Amino acid sequence: MEKIPPVKGTRDFYPPEMAVRNWIIDGWRRVSRRNGFVEYDGPIFEYLQLYTQKSGDEIAGQLFSLQDRGGRDLAIRPEITPTLARMVNQQVNALPRPIKWFSAPRLCRAENPQKGRLREFFQWNIDIIGSDDMLADAESIYTAVDYLRSVGLTADDIEARISSRAMLAELLKDQGFAEDQLDKVYVLLDKRPKLNAQDFEKLVSEQLPDPVQRERMMTIQGLKSLDEIEPLASSERAKKALDDLRQVFNYLDLMGVGAYCRFDISIVRGLAYYTGPVFEIFDKSATLRAICGGGRYDNLLAGLGGQEMPATGFGMGDVVLEILLQEKGLLGRIEDRLDFFVIDAAAGLFEEAVRLVSELRAMGYSTGMSYKRQNMKKQMKQASGQNARFVVILGQETLDEQKVTVKDMEKGEQQSILLADFLKSPVS
Amino acid sequence: MEKIPPVKGTRDFYPPEMAVRNWIIDGWRRVSRRNGFVEYDGPIFEYLQLYTQKSGDEIAGQLFSLQDRGGRDLAIRPEITPTLARMVNQQVNALPRPIKWFSAPRLCRAENPQKGRLREFFQWNIDIIGSDDMLADAESIYTAVDYLRSVGLTADDIEARISSRAMLAELLKDQGFAEDQLDKVYVLLDKRPKLNAQDFEKLVSEQLPDPVQRERMMTIQGLKSLDEIEPLASSERAKKALDDLRQVFNYLDLMGVGAYCRFDISIVRGLAYYTGPVFEIFDKSATLRAICGGGRYDNLLAGLGGQEMPATGFGMGDVVLEILLQEKGLLGRIEDRLDFFVIDAAAGLFEEAVRLVSELRAMGYSTGMSYKRQNMKKQMKQASGQNARFVVILGQETLDEQKVTVKDMEKGEQQSILLADFLKSPVS
Repeated sequence: MEKIPPVKGTRDFYPPEMAVRNWIIDGWRRVSRRNGFVEYDGPIFEYLQLYTQKSGDEIAGQLFSLQDRGGRDLAIRPEITPTLARMVNQQVNALPRPIKWFSAPRLCRAENPQKGRLREFFQWNIDIIGSDDMLADAESIYTAVDYLRSVGLTADDIEARISSRAMLAELLKDQGFAEDQLDKVYVLLDKRPKLNAQDFEKLVSEQLPDPVQRERMMTIQGLKSLDEIEPLASSERAKKALDDLRQVFNYLDLMGVGAYCRFDISIVRGLAYYTGPVFEIFDKSATLRAICGGGRYDNLLAGLGGQEMPATGFGMGDVVLEILLQEKGLLGRIEDRLDFFVIDAAAGLFEEAVRLVSELRAMGYSTGMSYKRQNMKKQMKQASGQNARFVVILGQETLDEQKVTVKDMEKGEQQSILLADFLKSPVS
Repeated sequence: MEKIPPVKGTRDFYPPEMAVRNWIIDGWRRVSRRNGFVEYDGPIFEYLQLYTQKSGDEIAGQLFSLQDRGGRDLAIRPEITPTLARMVNQQVNALPRPIKWFSAPRLCRAENPQKGRLREFFQWNIDIIGSDDMLADAESIYTAVDYLRSVGLTADDIEARISSRAMLAELLKDQGFAEDQLDKVYVLLDKRPKLNAQDFEKLVSEQLPDPVQRERMMTIQGLKSLDEIEPLASSERAKKALDDLRQVFNYLDLMGVGAYCRFDISIVRGLAYYTGPVFEIFDKSATLRAICGGGRYDNLLAGLGGQEMPATGFGMGDVVLEILLQEKGLLGRIEDRLDFFVIDAAAGLFEEAVRLVSELRAMGYSTGMSYKRQNMKKQMKQASGQNARFVVILGQETLDEQKVTVKDMEKGEQQSILLADFLKSPVS
């Protein structure tokens, strides 16, 4: 038979890689729950149309599409948001508000694999639906930071760069830009961090022939704080959007994560549907893509066949996150291990060993033994291979005095103890 | 925009359904680990050929197939075993033996949805690779029973029906059946439990024209115990296979699950690749399909492009399991809930509430609050809607004396306590 390889851009999770994946996803779940989110999930595929009906979506070209037996077009999910919208829209009147949901779906995109980008990955999604309060936006950003902080990343390692699409749009209009120029300016701001000053000015000159607009653009891209924006925001709408963003920063301070957050006018987010605060989280050395991105998207549910509903949230993929955690040395001690490995070191104790293993397992301890009756050295080797914390040896002392020897494999210490006492408190 | 439905045969997991799914899969993981298995996973799709190269597999006709951008044929995984074989074969010399792996993959099959069978489901897989010892087979069966027992199913609810393909084959040969008749007899035995005595005899008559064979077949299908088989197993090979199966039952007794297990000669398993002990677990009322099935498959890895390796394991899907647990009333109390819901009942306490929520979350408690400043009644309603165990009320007493009121929502009791004392031990 021919050896068939895995598909390019997918991953095989052998137990060591699976332990890391579980550690990441369990962390997402733990932090989601403590922040009051409940988990949902949808199917791995949906009707193709669910993904293509959203106009202006770059994702449609990256779909893995297939057909069901009736010839209907399906696609493996490239993102969970359309499913979320479908599910919320289906039960919109029955769900208690605000809807605070999270998910950690497997997603697939037919992209060319490269560093930090694979064809198959996991993405933590947080969404708060039904609230237009800035506390919801702050809580969404807080939840992302809360997770990253919980796995050991400090404010020296990462930062949440925050802006507001609403504020930016109003500011630009106050500064004389027309509605139909906004997208062009968003693209320019988005490119700003990737270019040096000279290349950026050149690009601005090409895109904005009007010298007044060009100068204003250069001023705006250089704004470093909300205080600097204040004098330029002349309309009521701009002032309101600025106040909203100030409130988000105020809440983040109250929540104790102010040190992780800063205003950054270049954060606009690629997708067209954002309507309020937006943010991305980067490693401060900024050699990687964004770890996480999100914001307020008040029109998306209506755009996917439902009613108008305010919403805010974010997505965080596992691929860039794992590279960062690896680089920072934060994945070192994640591994599967056995609590006990039981060894029969004298003839006639095999059945006793089988019984003891079952008793320890029933108590909840992960326990192993050798399937083959073999010498003690080989059994010890297998215990080490399975990374056991303790080895329990049944031997002559067991036959004579009902005792076992328990060896702590880390400390190298061992003690002889009555089997009955050992079973009362196995890891004391 | 048009409302697009989910694809038939898939499930939307709203938070209540997701809580049940997590409870089932977390249980699979817990029991796998305590029995010494480590988790692996593969991609959601593989090259189509990985599934079609195995001859005699009913699964090939149930594939959801797709193409990558280079036009290569892929398929969403209908089972994890081919991926397991691929992964083991890739690293066969580096992996410590025995390989004790588990997985809980999402699988897709293009079947017609019906009770207990969906197009998308989760399946717990346990595999022990590299041991031909009957202790491995017993441990595999034990692990399945251990899980079912742990979720509340008793020996009155379920039973593991166990036989051996090796023993059956040798017994049939000893009884004068030819090698090329075996498959026909397996099919007859497999159909036995679904037919009444009369219909079964009619079927046997059609399939076995030789009256001697027919009579022997009727004897064999009626064998109720290994003791009854003993006199019919005349060859050494049959005796060996019978001894092996006796050993499996002996180990299961030692492990404390003998009451869940019985010999059943009609268990042959549909798939062609089984070579030793085989088993299926049923609810005793037997209104449902098998909850679980597995056995020894010593030739499968070689058949999938690798070297000869003994192996045993099982698969347990979530769909039939969930129906049974539902019927038995064992899913009643699974739900997401908040530990705390914080209410600000006096003006000027909102920021204090935000701070308290963050402190409780940082301590690991799932905690919520209202995004909107609204009256206490509305906040209490939201606390109930989110299923909070305790409500913490900040009010005038907080402003005057730094106290909070903590209300136990189940018991209906409440007490006033210094905020500082509450934070020292929130759930005391």
